[in-house]
Amino acid sequence: MENQRPLILVSNDDGIMSKGISELLRFIRPMGEVVVMAPDTPRSGTSCSLTTNEPIHYTLVRKDVGLTVYKCSGTPTDCVKLAFHTVLDRKPDLVIGGINHGDNSSVNVHYSGTMGVVMEGCLKGVPSIGFSLCSHEPNADFEPAGTFVRDIVGRVLEKGLPPMTCLNVNFPAVKELKGVKVCRQTRAVWENEWENFAHRNDTHYYWLTGEYKNLEPDDEQTDHWALDNGYVAVTPTTVDVTAYGLMDELKSWF
Amino acid sequence: MENQRPLILVSNDDGIMSKGISELLRFIRPMGEVVVMAPDTPRSGTSCSLTTNEPIHYTLVRKDVGLTVYKCSGTPTDCVKLAFHTVLDRKPDLVIGGINHGDNSSVNVHYSGTMGVVMEGCLKGVPSIGFSLCSHEPNADFEPAGTFVRDIVGRVLEKGLPPMTCLNVNFPAVKELKGVKVCRQTRAVWENEWENFAHRNDTHYYWLTGEYKNLEPDDEQTDHWALDNGYVAVTPTTVDVTAYGLMDELKSWF
Repeated sequence: MENQRPLILVSNDDGIMSKGISELLRFIRPMGEVVVMAPDTPRSGTSCSLTTNEPIHYTLVRKDVGLTVYKCSGTPTDCVKLAFHTVLDRKPDLVIGGINHGDNSSVNVHYSGTMGVVMEGCLKGVPSIGFSLCSHEPNADFEPAGTFVRDIVGRVLEKGLPPMTCLNVNFPAVKELKGVKVCRQTRAVWENEWENFAHRNDTHYYWLTGEYKNLEPDDEQTDHWALDNGYVAVTPTTVDVTAYGLMDELKSWF
Repeated sequence: MENQRPLILVSNDDGIMSKGISELLRFIRPMGEVVVMAPDTPRSGTSCSLTTNEPIHYTLVRKDVGLTVYKCSGTPTDCVKLAFHTVLDRKPDLVIGGINHGDNSSVNVHYSGTMGVVMEGCLKGVPSIGFSLCSHEPNADFEPAGTFVRDIVGRVLEKGLPPMTCLNVNFPAVKELKGVKVCRQTRAVWENEWENFAHRNDTHYYWLTGEYKNLEPDDEQTDHWALDNGYVAVTPTTVDVTAYGLMDELKSWF
């Protein structure tokens, strides 16, 4: 038992066929026994959502030395829950989401299915990391992220993470990464979020789109500043969302 | 303008036809101008998810003095975003999600579409409250919650809430509520989460189910203790999920 290689569970929200998950596997496969349970179709923007109104299904795609791959009809969070229940023979040492095609820093953490994977791993008491590249290109270049992915995975396997905390790691889409910045979540809003169009004379159809507006673009502690300036943004993230600072004030209300 | 009544946006995740949203409207309608944009079908467990792969659509259901109701084909979070973009003529004074049929305290906050409504309102800079009753009964009795709903809504309209914070309010399903407890999120895990069955000889189908296991059942500061003991649990909740306590340790890694 003591000589067991680390067991790493991988999922994502872009789906089993995305380049990002394939590149992640290439980077981390030498570091442990890897099991993948990933959505069979793209599931971007699914947050921590669950499939409650229909059954889900999983299938073995590939079994190789040190790598077993399953696809699943559920959400990213379903994938993690189902892998724990079915295909993992012990509690994993690490859960990884990604590598996502697109920025999951700042407020995007709330909508991200990649971070849904990570928060679920964290809620199950396993150190968990989300990796995202700030490019939606299907054929984006993940190569510059490789050494950082391996470094961060190695450190988390060695040191662990405190209960209820996980890492949200975002890479700017540049060739030369300047290094790592430990950051906080940037305050930002999405604006002009809908594109209206008419369908059969009904003008109430809308596609989601939007413009990201950073509310603190000059703050060097924020994850978006790091990304804008060529650094890997590592944002420690909690699944305990209690607003502790508000408790005393609220107690005075009642 | 100064004499305008408060503008309150309401949504939920159980859908426009649920008893919970109807009871909420009965409780709060005297308190302001109410606009509803709610999902046209039940959307439980959808967290902060977005509809990214198809357009969504909304329809006017009812327009009355002080109450306008729309239904929408999107997720709870989509409903809030779309209402801000289309039907609200000014920034609302309050966003309310609920009243949910089912417990959204503890770790359930992460999966809840009701809290998806609330976190979206909060991210848009509006004081936001989620109300949930710990009963999944379609015909649950919301009446005991009424005075507390009105009291909490009144206080938030009067005092506001700090940026990036919102309220997650849960009611035990009892006739006599003992009062309000300001709480923190209970640490808990879901176990035995899947029910396996076979379909056409394929045994890899699973329905989501699960047993809630409270990891700190005796802690009187937690929201589940409050609910188990007959109190209304008010859990102040943040949308800044940075794990600030981990930043210094992480900086020493890199």
